[in-house]
Amino acid sequence: MKEYFNNVSKINYEGPNSKNPYSFKYYNADEIIGDKSMKKHLRFAMSYWHTLTADGTDQFGVGTMLRSWNNVNDKMELAKARMEAAFEFMDKLNINYFCFHDRDIAPEGKDLTETNKNLDEIVSFCKNLMKKHDKKLLWGTANLFSNPRFVHGAGTTCNVDVFAYAAAQIKKAIEITKELGGENYVFWGGREGYETLLNTNMEFELDNFARLLHMAVDYAKEIDFKGQFLIEPKPKEPTKHQYDSDVATVLGFLRKYKLDSYFKINIEANHATLAGHTFQHEICLARINNALGSLDANQGDPHLGWDTDQFPTDTYSSTLSMYEVLKNGGIAPGGLNFDAKVRRASFEPEDLFLAYIAGMDTFAKGLRVAYKLLKDGPIENFIKEKYSSFNTSIGKAIVDGKVGFNELEKYALENNDIKNRSGRQELLESIVNQYLLEDK
Amino acid sequence: MKEYFNNVSKINYEGPNSKNPYSFKYYNADEIIGDKSMKKHLRFAMSYWHTLTADGTDQFGVGTMLRSWNNVNDKMELAKARMEAAFEFMDKLNINYFCFHDRDIAPEGKDLTETNKNLDEIVSFCKNLMKKHDKKLLWGTANLFSNPRFVHGAGTTCNVDVFAYAAAQIKKAIEITKELGGENYVFWGGREGYETLLNTNMEFELDNFARLLHMAVDYAKEIDFKGQFLIEPKPKEPTKHQYDSDVATVLGFLRKYKLDSYFKINIEANHATLAGHTFQHEICLARINNALGSLDANQGDPHLGWDTDQFPTDTYSSTLSMYEVLKNGGIAPGGLNFDAKVRRASFEPEDLFLAYIAGMDTFAKGLRVAYKLLKDGPIENFIKEKYSSFNTSIGKAIVDGKVGFNELEKYALENNDIKNRSGRQELLESIVNQYLLEDK
Amino acid sequence: MKEYFNNVSKINYEGPNSKNPYSFKYYNADEIIGDKSMKKHLRFAMSYWHTLTADGTDQFGVGTMLRSWNNVNDKMELAKARMEAAFEFMDKLNINYFCFHDRDIAPEGKDLTETNKNLDEIVSFCKNLMKKHDKKLLWGTANLFSNPRFVHGAGTTCNVDVFAYAAAQIKKAIEITKELGGENYVFWGGREGYETLLNTNMEFELDNFARLLHMAVDYAKEIDFKGQFLIEPKPKEPTKHQYDSDVATVLGFLRKYKLDSYFKINIEANHATLAGHTFQHEICLARINNALGSLDANQGDPHLGWDTDQFPTDTYSSTLSMYEVLKNGGIAPGGLNFDAKVRRASFEPEDLFLAYIAGMDTFAKGLRVAYKLLKDGPIENFIKEKYSSFNTSIGKAIVDGKVGFNELEKYALENNDIKNRSGRQELLESIVNQYLLEDK
Amino acid sequence: MKEYFNNVSKINYEGPNSKNPYSFKYYNADEIIGDKSMKKHLRFAMSYWHTLTADGTDQFGVGTMLRSWNNVNDKMELAKARMEAAFEFMDKLNINYFCFHDRDIAPEGKDLTETNKNLDEIVSFCKNLMKKHDKKLLWGTANLFSNPRFVHGAGTTCNVDVFAYAAAQIKKAIEITKELGGENYVFWGGREGYETLLNTNMEFELDNFARLLHMAVDYAKEIDFKGQFLIEPKPKEPTKHQYDSDVATVLGFLRKYKLDSYFKINIEANHATLAGHTFQHEICLARINNALGSLDANQGDPHLGWDTDQFPTDTYSSTLSMYEVLKNGGIAPGGLNFDAKVRRASFEPEDLFLAYIAGMDTFAKGLRVAYKLLKDGPIENFIKEKYSSFNTSIGKAIVDGKVGFNELEKYALENNDIKNRSGRQELLESIVNQYLLEDK
Repeated sequence: MKEYFNNVSKINYEGPNSKNPYSFKYYNADEIIGDKSMKKHLRFAMSYWHTLTADGTDQFGVGTMLRSWNNVNDKMELAKARMEAAFEFMDKLNINYFCFHDRDIAPEGKDLTETNKNLDEIVSFCKNLMKKHDKKLLWGTANLFSNPRFVHGAGTTCNVDVFAYAAAQIKKAIEITKELGGENYVFWGGREGYETLLNTNMEFELDNFARLLHMAVDYAKEIDFKGQFLIEPKPKEPTKHQYDSDVATVLGFLRKYKLDSYFKINIEANHATLAGHTFQHEICLARINNALGSLDANQGDPHLGWDTDQFPTDTYSSTLSMYEVLKNGGIAPGGLNFDAKVRRASFEPEDLFLAYIAGMDTFAKGLRVAYKLLKDGPIENFIKEKYSSFNTSIGKAIVDGKVGFNELEKYALENNDIKNRSGRQELLESIVNQYLLEDK
Repeated sequence: MKEYFNNVSKINYEGPNSKNPYSFKYYNADEIIGDKSMKKHLRFAMSYWHTLTADGTDQFGVGTMLRSWNNVNDKMELAKARMEAAFEFMDKLNINYFCFHDRDIAPEGKDLTETNKNLDEIVSFCKNLMKKHDKKLLWGTANLFSNPRFVHGAGTTCNVDVFAYAAAQIKKAIEITKELGGENYVFWGGREGYETLLNTNMEFELDNFARLLHMAVDYAKEIDFKGQFLIEPKPKEPTKHQYDSDVATVLGFLRKYKLDSYFKINIEANHATLAGHTFQHEICLARINNALGSLDANQGDPHLGWDTDQFPTDTYSSTLSMYEVLKNGGIAPGGLNFDAKVRRASFEPEDLFLAYIAGMDTFAKGLRVAYKLLKDGPIENFIKEKYSSFNTSIGKAIVDGKVGFNELEKYALENNDIKNRSGRQELLESIVNQYLLEDK
Repeated sequence: MKEYFNNVSKINYEGPNSKNPYSFKYYNADEIIGDKSMKKHLRFAMSYWHTLTADGTDQFGVGTMLRSWNNVNDKMELAKARMEAAFEFMDKLNINYFCFHDRDIAPEGKDLTETNKNLDEIVSFCKNLMKKHDKKLLWGTANLFSNPRFVHGAGTTCNVDVFAYAAAQIKKAIEITKELGGENYVFWGGREGYETLLNTNMEFELDNFARLLHMAVDYAKEIDFKGQFLIEPKPKEPTKHQYDSDVATVLGFLRKYKLDSYFKINIEANHATLAGHTFQHEICLARINNALGSLDANQGDPHLGWDTDQFPTDTYSSTLSMYEVLKNGGIAPGGLNFDAKVRRASFEPEDLFLAYIAGMDTFAKGLRVAYKLLKDGPIENFIKEKYSSFNTSIGKAIVDGKVGFNELEKYALENNDIKNRSGRQELLESIVNQYLLEDK
Repeated sequence: MKEYFNNVSKINYEGPNSKNPYSFKYYNADEIIGDKSMKKHLRFAMSYWHTLTADGTDQFGVGTMLRSWNNVNDKMELAKARMEAAFEFMDKLNINYFCFHDRDIAPEGKDLTETNKNLDEIVSFCKNLMKKHDKKLLWGTANLFSNPRFVHGAGTTCNVDVFAYAAAQIKKAIEITKELGGENYVFWGGREGYETLLNTNMEFELDNFARLLHMAVDYAKEIDFKGQFLIEPKPKEPTKHQYDSDVATVLGFLRKYKLDSYFKINIEANHATLAGHTFQHEICLARINNALGSLDANQGDPHLGWDTDQFPTDTYSSTLSMYEVLKNGGIAPGGLNFDAKVRRASFEPEDLFLAYIAGMDTFAKGLRVAYKLLKDGPIENFIKEKYSSFNTSIGKAIVDGKVGFNELEKYALENNDIKNRSGRQELLESIVNQYLLEDK
């Protein structure tokens, strides 16, 4: 088999003092953290689109990426070359999982029949490679946003033909996800939103979107697809307003349409940023609602208003997000998908490796620090103590639902001298610093 | 009775060509728009805090406002003088409703007993003035954010004594709202949120907040308070993250805790801005969820990240928000509360009148334009036509829940040539301009 | 000659009550406003790229635009067809000016020699059409951002070969701008900025950028190009930080490198939004620094963080920007270039007309209202009175530079009782509303 | 002398493994980094206002801070108690410098004469304490924003009486800064900006502001004040638009009015955030313009739009800002002033210590990491190599100003095959991580 990244060998753990840029400094796959290996905690996945398909195009310029497989002309041959490169890449980086959209892996044909035929051929090719390389599919999804037909949305389109097409495409995407043993299936509503309310029936669109999701639930039952369904929130881009804006919005939507028992949430760091939240906030909110599904591990730029999808290198964010993941009892059957792209100026094939190493190391460090923080307990103990007045007497009665306004008014009228204690934010931030900087 | 605004007479409608700055140009209270008078459509309310209590203090400077009632030294006398000024003000502006927090109208005493006594005295004083001036209470609320005791929140505090105090305060505030015939009661979670997740148990805090709201529901039943309960969303400020972030978030929260049948939403324009939404978006979202309760009519500055609470003068925003209100069948029992403050540099008493005139005219114009737009139907007809493919055959079957992925795939495989039609955003924006600019 | 927009006839002024969507409601080219016709005040220009070349591609989807000239396969034939369509379009809309980047009008060849040859052929073709249709070039510019060679910048690149290429490209673009009688030449630094300071020598890059601009100044003198040089500010996008961030930044840059006598500023509304400024602010700041060159008339979405380049339909913004233009004594030799694109969902050819009509009407209305505001003087008179204490005695002495701290301290020590007057913001906003809504 | 913080002893360096929260983990004052001690590199200063005067008031609530000196009733006695507490605080934290506004340290009297008398008395008291405790004044400034008289600005006011008052106040503030040996004097234009252009003559205001600054320059010469004048940029808050928006804006302003040789810039991290810049960006821009004066060491919240003035705990930001400081050859005569306030919920006196420890440790770590990065050179060497094509032949000719468009076009026409190299952003971010996390 052809080698596509012959400049880069298999990446190994060489530790923080290694001068070799093509080595892991913190990610040591088999190192045990608590009850399992780093690899099992982190469940890293390669994003097919950013890694294999993307070419560096942005709104103001054409592609820059140097990718050896692009020498092939025939579309199906290209798709296969790219697929081989994908597995070589995962092998070298010691990544177990990957994620894809249907249109990332196989080209559209002249009609849906041919498109599905292309897909089947590539899926079969993929399945063999998965076996050979011992790789798994974290999740599949359908690209319902790139083609012009989705200009007004897919599940929220005004055009019944488009709705039907989207349904057919999702049906097929669930089938191939099942065929490849995918552990989850993601819905990201790339065009589900609006540009202006002046031409939009929001109520109808949301109802229709829920109808589409119910059809997906029904179909999964029909074909016995056991993977977890996930919704991925994003507040804006490409549309002015995306319906699945953030975790809280999605939870409300799922509850309204009685979909909450079928869907969990795939949270992307950069989408949290665009929604004005921290990554930790979104993960925590999903966690306490029993809806934490999977993570798109990337980062945004807090000064920019679009989805930069940078590789995650902020160890504060990785620490605090892994903290929530550990409190959740882990992320499985979800994982950490690098929905991240090398910068347009990092166009050499080697940059793909350097970027994944950066991201994997960042989360490996975050995992270690989060684990120690939880084990030692400086934050959890502070919080426990802070709320302790609710553990006994009137506090407990409130929590147990045994008192109402009458009892509480009586208590308050007799309890004039209220004392609060400091929230100690600065100290707690210092403690995080110390754990982060002293972890060895 | 003393006159507090003796420089300004009663404000009348003099129409758009009047050169008198102390006259309405568009607000003509008894003019009939459709099925009722402007006054009944708009249900304007004076906000007690911004109009009577606020002094122009900001984070970088002390108060600037010139207010004649502040000459009084005794706190209770001041409270009464202020109350008289309030009714004089409403009279002169022909405003029927007002809104208040408990602490706006009466000073805190040395303990809760004395505080409640103060409140009772002022409420009695207020009731007489209401009768005399024929004014109504749109809504009451409790200020659970100014006092240092609420430093860690009220319903979401970590301190049971504070929780009890908040409960007692809400109990009393509901009682006085009932006493004054208040048509709604508002919950704005001024300190219900967090500064840092490092010291926060978000799950516990949200559960507790729901407990508090359930107690309020129970107590309203107990005392037979018939007013509508409202939650007012805001995403940030004063805390880094406020739990009731926006309409979608509140809807999800209410559904989770089975509070959705008891609460509607009080939507503030500036809070929408801070959440990254248009005012119209938030109103529309509440409307289609049968949760539109009332409006805080103000405006923010899209370039600033804090709550500027400016008087609303943007006629686009007032037109599009009234458009949603009309589609909702009106806003009653809610209203349009001017939760707006004159700029710190507009410190003369006359500015209060100029600002309310500006706001009332802005919404009067918005109402007229929205009414004509709906009557003529250029937008609604466009939308109706746009979605018409869902009215028949396969479209109707989708809406009726009679088809699933299998049928839709079959349809899509046979229907290769999909045509979309333009969304015509630019034309629709032009139409709004023409209606706005040509309204007479 | 082929007709490319045969569904749409010449657009005429039919006035605000016309039901014909393909008519001007406010733009009446020959109507006299003050000392000259609307047409001469507004100097509208068609943007070649958005109107003829763009296809609706965004970061998440491919092109949607239906454009009849795209049937041609040969690149040069396509370029000519597009050029013919451009003139047909300007004719029908009664637009006198256009603007282009070198690469909009002619395709790149296999090397710079062939590229320049292509350009020469199209420029000659264009010159004939300009004569025939009586159209003028408002400004030309060079596209130094789309090609991968500019991945690290053009004038701020780290690669001398790219710098030389950029210089050669600008040289040629100035030559063709001169050849076509262009009244201005614009520099927009599409890639002049950085993604991360970690790989950037900002000092060197800025020095180099200034060197490039000095070379342009020298070359313009050499070939006697009399057009005005303009810099177009934008704070971010495509790079994280663009050097020419906003008007104030550009003024500081020009002064540092002694370029301020050669350059004025081309201000885009949406770029102002991205920089956190109003359009009026940027125009005013340029005006008072004698640097107002030209305008890119579009609008952004205040809730979005990227350049949406919408057609301008906000009459507040058009009024206040025309107010500044009138105070500037007009915008010539600059103009109002519609650097605006129809929404991706407005993909029919007719939408181009509807969008330009929307934009032209918006600025026509803005011009009329601004003119009346200035003529009647409610704002200017308020401002004049507000600052009047600086017209006499100690105020005048300050302005004349005749007093210092010693005299002012003496004055202040004796002048304890300071009175300010209200800034009347709400009243002034009402006045703008009244002028806008009452203009006929 | 009374002890105000008797719960907290002198803070010493106990190193990263100390469990004592009241100890430095990274700040070791006398440790030598390169050519001097940490203490001399960092030149930490206490901000008088946030530390001694502020009480935790925010826009939605009154003060929360527990401060033992507030028991004193007499204003002058309070001022002295507070001053003693200040020196005790600096002693215990081993901080050498402090900064103040005139109104922080002494109360206003009934007129300017009495106000100045109060100030003189406190300054004399302060001078004795400075001697006794061996502390220095980093900078003084005048508070020209809190008093209502500055409602329309100080140097940019429309009221000549206010302008004169501001001049008198600055005169006095410079005098006392000189008296106390202040090494710098800061101008922060707290109200120098506008709320709306509708009532603003921006040109006149900016001209007047420049006049005021020239008077200050003249007066400094007259009294032989040798301290460095500094301007502190901020883009918004309290006004909608502050004139001194960011470093680039200030540089342009200074150049226009020929003030650039007299002023450098005091850069605050949180103000950079509000302007959409990183702290590093602003420091770098000032550095390369020879205008880096001093730093306000704090941090903002990237999701919030107001000045949160948090204590700095982000070690990425401290590393990259110290990197620029070291490249600048240090920050003297400026320093690192903690313009930071404990959170409203961190209201216990101990929190002041915990917060300063957090901030000092954060910058101590940043200094160490930045020093190693510069010494080892992984970033600087990459950058040097990246731009190396400008060191020889045509590159050098460009830099030396020996070639123009003609030569560069000739070169470009003959040089068709341009190669760029990767910008390696992800690798460089990894390197920063490794230096940060491995520093011991």
